[in-house]
Amino acid sequence: MQSFFEKRTTALDTSQPSIRHLQDLIRHRTPVAIQVSGVGELEGTLHWQDIHYLALSQDEGRPLTLISRAAASTIRALG
Amino acid sequence: MQSFFEKRTTALDTSQPSIRHLQDLIRHRTPVAIQVSGVGELEGTLHWQDIHYLALSQDEGRPLTLISRAAASTIRALG
Amino acid sequence: MQSFFEKRTTALDTSQPSIRHLQDLIRHRTPVAIQVSGVGELEGTLHWQDIHYLALSQDEGRPLTLISRAAASTIRALG
Amino acid sequence: MQSFFEKRTTALDTSQPSIRHLQDLIRHRTPVAIQVSGVGELEGTLHWQDIHYLALSQDEGRPLTLISRAAASTIRALG
Amino acid sequence: MQSFFEKRTTALDTSQPSIRHLQDLIRHRTPVAIQVSGVGELEGTLHWQDIHYLALSQDEGRPLTLISRAAASTIRALG
Amino acid sequence: MQSFFEKRTTALDTSQPSIRHLQDLIRHRTPVAIQVSGVGELEGTLHWQDIHYLALSQDEGRPLTLISRAAASTIRALG
Repeated sequence: MQSFFEKRTTALDTSQPSIRHLQDLIRHRTPVAIQVSGVGELEGTLHWQDIHYLALSQDEGRPLTLISRAAASTIRALG
Repeated sequence: MQSFFEKRTTALDTSQPSIRHLQDLIRHRTPVAIQVSGVGELEGTLHWQDIHYLALSQDEGRPLTLISRAAASTIRALG
Repeated sequence: MQSFFEKRTTALDTSQPSIRHLQDLIRHRTPVAIQVSGVGELEGTLHWQDIHYLALSQDEGRPLTLISRAAASTIRALG
Repeated sequence: MQSFFEKRTTALDTSQPSIRHLQDLIRHRTPVAIQVSGVGELEGTLHWQDIHYLALSQDEGRPLTLISRAAASTIRALG
Repeated sequence: MQSFFEKRTTALDTSQPSIRHLQDLIRHRTPVAIQVSGVGELEGTLHWQDIHYLALSQDEGRPLTLISRAAASTIRALG
Repeated sequence: MQSFFEKRTTALDTSQPSIRHLQDLIRHRTPVAIQVSGVGELEGTLHWQDIHYLALSQDEGRPLTLISRAAASTIRALG
């Protein structure tokens, strides 16, 4: 339940270190582990991020899993 | 507890990849699995999304289930 | 912890499908089941909604239960 | 992590039915039961509400318990 | 994931009863018990509050514990 | 689901005691323990903070763990 002014353009703030950190993980297809609240740890590679979700590929042949940012407790590169 | 200016028109920001991703799942009636916090995984097809909820049809004959976006941890297409 | 400008009038955004969907459930006194985080499923009829809460009548003779929107994971009509 | 402009005056929006409903419970010292996430059900009488907390008196002789609105899943009058 | 205009000065809204209530607990070094979501009850004295955290001293000799306001379900004075 | 105006510059509000407290922990590489909702306690040293995440080094040789601020219930220096 929040104010939305979504007709205005909204964009990720790339001045935030975390946005850039995630952008690097996406660019390099780095394997990651994401702790998802109430679900457990999901592994895969990130394909994109937006202000609401992270898109995780858990298997090359399977559709992307959208992970709500609000439910993603921790994110770390594997290896 | 948040600021609301709801008399102004609010709309989904279709420049966000996740909004478009969900819009595709709705348009193609793709079977999806949604992890709902404290409830578990719900399966069905999405009928619409708005800024607060996703409307899931779990059974063609049954009424829609509104899933709060805040409670939807992960969303993925099945198959 | 959020910005509040509550002296300005705030109103539900009736252009949102979910607000209208809930308004229909209220108008028709449709029996509903609401999954409440940490509580379980509550059944009854909705009497009103505002930006913070849903007001559920679980028993005609008992006082309304206010359910925080933030805690209502899913809402569905019964039957 | 949210925007705060707290030097501006902020006030409860008394046009919201839930704010008025709670105000009535406070005025009449109605015994209430509040489901608090991760804590369970607390009973007592409400002394005040503000935009962040509900102040519950569980025992006349004991200090007030501040309950975060974000953690209060349901609120209902007893009896 | 929220809007931040943090270069503007932000301050606690001391017109809110809860902010003043906590300020009193800090000023008088009143022993408090804070229910923290997923952690349990922490006891100590509050040293300061800001818009994001409460700073709890659990032991005079130990460093402060920052408790996220979002995770603090209930706060009450002891005794 | 929130309003984003992220093309405007956003910065941490260093007038907040908690932001400065965390900045000190980062600067001095103080070992910390962070309670993460649904995960448990993580230990390490903080490398940076932004408005969305804390970056924790759990092991000098391993990649950073991003911890969502929303999931970090408590933060305390060790020792």
